[in-house]
Amino acid sequence: MVTLKDVAAECGVSPTTVSNILNGKSKASEETVRRVLSMVEKMGYQPNYMAQGLRTQRTRTVAIIAEDINQFTTPFIIGAVMNGLEQQGYRTILENLRMYERWRDTWYDSEAALSSILDPALQQCRAYHVDGIIYIAGHARRIHLIPEELDIPVVMTYAYAVSDHIPSVVIDDEQGAYEVMKYLLEKGHRKIAILTGRQDNIHTQLRMKGAMRAMYEYGCMFNPYLTAEGNWNRADARKALERLRITEQDVTAVFTLNDEMASAVYDVYEEAGFKIGEDISIVGFDNAVIAQYFRPGLTTTALPLTEIGAKAAELLVSMLANENGAADNKTYYFPCTFVERASVKDIR
Amino acid sequence: MVTLKDVAAECGVSPTTVSNILNGKSKASEETVRRVLSMVEKMGYQPNYMAQGLRTQRTRTVAIIAEDINQFTTPFIIGAVMNGLEQQGYRTILENLRMYERWRDTWYDSEAALSSILDPALQQCRAYHVDGIIYIAGHARRIHLIPEELDIPVVMTYAYAVSDHIPSVVIDDEQGAYEVMKYLLEKGHRKIAILTGRQDNIHTQLRMKGAMRAMYEYGCMFNPYLTAEGNWNRADARKALERLRITEQDVTAVFTLNDEMASAVYDVYEEAGFKIGEDISIVGFDNAVIAQYFRPGLTTTALPLTEIGAKAAELLVSMLANENGAADNKTYYFPCTFVERASVKDIR
Repeated sequence: MVTLKDVAAECGVSPTTVSNILNGKSKASEETVRRVLSMVEKMGYQPNYMAQGLRTQRTRTVAIIAEDINQFTTPFIIGAVMNGLEQQGYRTILENLRMYERWRDTWYDSEAALSSILDPALQQCRAYHVDGIIYIAGHARRIHLIPEELDIPVVMTYAYAVSDHIPSVVIDDEQGAYEVMKYLLEKGHRKIAILTGRQDNIHTQLRMKGAMRAMYEYGCMFNPYLTAEGNWNRADARKALERLRITEQDVTAVFTLNDEMASAVYDVYEEAGFKIGEDISIVGFDNAVIAQYFRPGLTTTALPLTEIGAKAAELLVSMLANENGAADNKTYYFPCTFVERASVKDIR
Repeated sequence: MVTLKDVAAECGVSPTTVSNILNGKSKASEETVRRVLSMVEKMGYQPNYMAQGLRTQRTRTVAIIAEDINQFTTPFIIGAVMNGLEQQGYRTILENLRMYERWRDTWYDSEAALSSILDPALQQCRAYHVDGIIYIAGHARRIHLIPEELDIPVVMTYAYAVSDHIPSVVIDDEQGAYEVMKYLLEKGHRKIAILTGRQDNIHTQLRMKGAMRAMYEYGCMFNPYLTAEGNWNRADARKALERLRITEQDVTAVFTLNDEMASAVYDVYEEAGFKIGEDISIVGFDNAVIAQYFRPGLTTTALPLTEIGAKAAELLVSMLANENGAADNKTYYFPCTFVERASVKDIR
């Protein structure tokens, strides 16, 4: 392997001169700079980041730790994080904990399970001397597993860090659901069923809060008998709808707290001879890729995943620039964007 | 940070003894082993992988280089690769080149563009002393950008490596399309339109080859006037269908070489008053997540992404075990799995 010393010897300058030129800090003549750079290229010298990191204590590398890249939200956040960091001259490595792939949703409440996978990932971050970490949760919850003694700055995304020095960047679930429900109410709907995710899930809790706030404002009674847990997926949502005997109820609209559960509403009503968007109105949440392929297209609200990723990158870069300044532990909320398609009828 | 020496001093043994115990190579007494391991845990000692790598020349870390994790195929391959490697005691880091995010499909033929992103990633792999690399292409093509002088074993997935020592693990596009077309033919269809991807794309070429093989076997004429390029996406597929005036043609079935383009066929025929699966039959390719949400569900064929990832991990592990054995440059094909839903009518 070609070393800095080899390049220096070949050019007849000191290794320090070559190093300064490569780091843009040189006071050498233009001619020397040109000569060194052309020799660097000719000899194929490549700086050793690790050795550099050991000297400067900075590797300009950030680790992204994702709970699972197969969560539909995660690749979008990753893309925006990487884009933001790259623009600031940082390289990234990605650690994929594969939590859902390992254990589906059985690890929701198991900090031991998460720790057993997270700890080796953090250890690797230390070994690689990364400058910072951006953590991408698979679903919103309070996370207090980042060790307080970890001496690497961390930004949390898509969940809420319980820590004095870790800021969190999240979607505004409550306001998003408020707007979706308000849309239904403005179209004249009052008899509304709701399919939720797991009750112990923060997305469920905040989205319900937003939905109920809108109902209160419009003087619309919330009917708990028309609300059921669909566990975020098509099969469980179907079972919940069947338990509710939904097609025999006198509802004009169904709000599912994610898009996937909406597909079960389409299924059940269509099988009973209803026309979606005419005889029954449906709204979802997420604007997942699937929503645009529903027939008719599903009215829903889009998660600000790109915005979250960009903000997380920006926060981390500013934390790294102010290493003596105290990191904040604020929560940054980003709004969803309502997406109107054709699954709701105006019944005013 | 607690070092190996600290643990050794605390236990009254040599650092070598501690190291051997941690690596399972110790000849020490059971009592000593127990004492050292409990001290390791108590003191929170964590081995430094990088330092270890410098000593043993092995880090037991593999880099996964993905052209873009936002390609729908990629996360599934990544999951299977990580699972396979983890079972063999390897850790992984992921490099995401974000090629489509940067340049959509304009980099298809630009080796310079790919090089400009790939080279720093390979440099980082060298800096981290990874034992091996698994490369995940975003679409099939011949890739000759992995430098021949790279001294790290590489396995290529989802594309074909042009190299003497890089094996490739790919889907069997030709056989997959053969089976889909054969299904249409067995259901009595003879007037069949085809929407392809880009003509310069290997997926297009191989899938067309398979489709035409089936047509030949069934004595069915291939009609080039009913074949158009839909560029893999819904909007371009729609334009292609409109240029063909597809709903005015006397076809009974449409084969789109991916699932996303099938959504445009649904759109165009439904708008013309056709009932999908009754008045017109449609088959796709990929079994992408969206296919199960089409109404009626789309008959298609599933890509063997998990199988590809598992095989790639297995190959790399065996290459690492036989470091003096010659790596092969074979291509390993994995079959697709036909998925029957409700978009095809039996018209025999």
